[in-house]
Amino acid sequence: MLNFSDRLIEAIKKKNSVLVAGIDTTVENIPDYFIKKYYDNEKNEIENLKYILFEYNRRIIDAIEENIVGVKFQAAFFEQYSYYGIEVLHKLIQYAQNKKLIVIFDGKRNDISSSAKGYSNAYIGETALFDKKIKFFDCDAMTVNPYLGEDGIKPFVEDCERFKKGLFVLVKTSNPSSKDFQDLIVDGKYLFEKVAEKVHEWGASCKGKHGYSDIGAVVGATQPQAARIVRSILPNSFLLIPGIGVQGGKIEDLKYFLDKNKMGIIVNSSRDIIYAYKNHIHSDFEKSSFIASKNLKESINSVIN
Amino acid sequence: MLNFSDRLIEAIKKKNSVLVAGIDTTVENIPDYFIKKYYDNEKNEIENLKYILFEYNRRIIDAIEENIVGVKFQAAFFEQYSYYGIEVLHKLIQYAQNKKLIVIFDGKRNDISSSAKGYSNAYIGETALFDKKIKFFDCDAMTVNPYLGEDGIKPFVEDCERFKKGLFVLVKTSNPSSKDFQDLIVDGKYLFEKVAEKVHEWGASCKGKHGYSDIGAVVGATQPQAARIVRSILPNSFLLIPGIGVQGGKIEDLKYFLDKNKMGIIVNSSRDIIYAYKNHIHSDFEKSSFIASKNLKESINSVIN
Repeated sequence: MLNFSDRLIEAIKKKNSVLVAGIDTTVENIPDYFIKKYYDNEKNEIENLKYILFEYNRRIIDAIEENIVGVKFQAAFFEQYSYYGIEVLHKLIQYAQNKKLIVIFDGKRNDISSSAKGYSNAYIGETALFDKKIKFFDCDAMTVNPYLGEDGIKPFVEDCERFKKGLFVLVKTSNPSSKDFQDLIVDGKYLFEKVAEKVHEWGASCKGKHGYSDIGAVVGATQPQAARIVRSILPNSFLLIPGIGVQGGKIEDLKYFLDKNKMGIIVNSSRDIIYAYKNHIHSDFEKSSFIASKNLKESINSVIN
Repeated sequence: MLNFSDRLIEAIKKKNSVLVAGIDTTVENIPDYFIKKYYDNEKNEIENLKYILFEYNRRIIDAIEENIVGVKFQAAFFEQYSYYGIEVLHKLIQYAQNKKLIVIFDGKRNDISSSAKGYSNAYIGETALFDKKIKFFDCDAMTVNPYLGEDGIKPFVEDCERFKKGLFVLVKTSNPSSKDFQDLIVDGKYLFEKVAEKVHEWGASCKGKHGYSDIGAVVGATQPQAARIVRSILPNSFLLIPGIGVQGGKIEDLKYFLDKNKMGIIVNSSRDIIYAYKNHIHSDFEKSSFIASKNLKESINSVIN
């Protein structure tokens, strides 16, 4: 099996796309007509949730798959439906895996080493259960928060090496308040630069045959100036870039995120794809998402190429 | 309903304990004889997991309840069993709530505001589901990571105000690598001081009738020097203190964490309680956990009083 970074590069080439769709659906945002059509009054709301949440997202994935290299699942929006939501998440992850999409679990997990290991087991590694070892989610990559430092990241990095997985460490996030701590100055550098330096260290031993590390960074599309700095510290890492569209990130700024090969980025869009129907692109939500993802892919490619 | 900080203070007085038991059980650490006794070969390993993981933790809670003010559930150790683990977690949370224990969800969640809202909905707030609003976990408090800054914390704080819940923001963690970023110097202060200052701001509007904020901080028992600094910045906040025992934190150092009323702390112990049987305190695991929790409670009280 190839390293994560190699799998990602080959998938990008095959799809001619660095676009990742954020599957962040909440039931309130699913079109009314869809809910009316599929809500089964014979069943309780949990059974309806499980069917409708899966089915809406499955159809979005079917509609957009040719335009995307992968899917990023925002854990929060599934966790808010308790274990029922996680069951849907699990089923959607398997569905995306069967389509050979790159699957990223966006949970921004973090803890001391023993607990970090539990998270890593769940999403990119394996869990011991009686006399078995089970890969419950088996995602390609996940996001983590660096605040606890190296020993909270190492369990994930070790599983990346062992199971050929990837990690994206939060470095400079897309939200306005990312400045509160990430932009504080330490020894003449931004805190996020210090974090990027550590990401470089942590990822040094995880390089694939294309020379890219399997340990990447999250840098928001709203942060092009930070991106130039991070890119200089992480010349051989993938950057996962959320924040285009609703959050204010501009596609033309993606040029500041590219590496010297004009590569090394994947770009997430969530609401502009999964709720594209709200922009009245087309009367059909699947077609709307298809068109939105195609336009996004092409706009991004025009900046990269 | 009382504010979280008031509920906590009243529970501490009633129980004469600031001890919180960390329910962080992995199946590998459950005694062999317990697994042999309850493993049902007629059922698959998932059904056995759900029964055994619940039943072991339930018995621990029964055994120790008189010695503890609350329970802290480490999300990672349940998530590693996928949605089956979360179902057990949900059942254990309800079980602990029925015993009037303070329930803390230790998930160290963090994200941009829209996603943070999803996490808050799940664990301390409510989730919209079709025409209903459901409080899926309804915990008393949860832990969060501050790296994304204010707009990633606000959704939780708003739910604390609305639903009378509490928050513990990671300030200075118990692990050795907490120094990597938390101890970096910004304007002559440690980064964790800057975080504590923000926690003070965020919690200013969430005070209960006893004058304590519902927005507290996590400070590791291994960090007594940091604790003195944090305490000076947060004179009216609860500190959630993990890290005594296996991680090296000393009970006698808890004096540095106390406020001017010799209050304002809750102290977590996980492995020393849930796996007390390993220390051969007693042939019975429940009795072992009872003795360990009683000894811990009394040792801590001797430092506080």
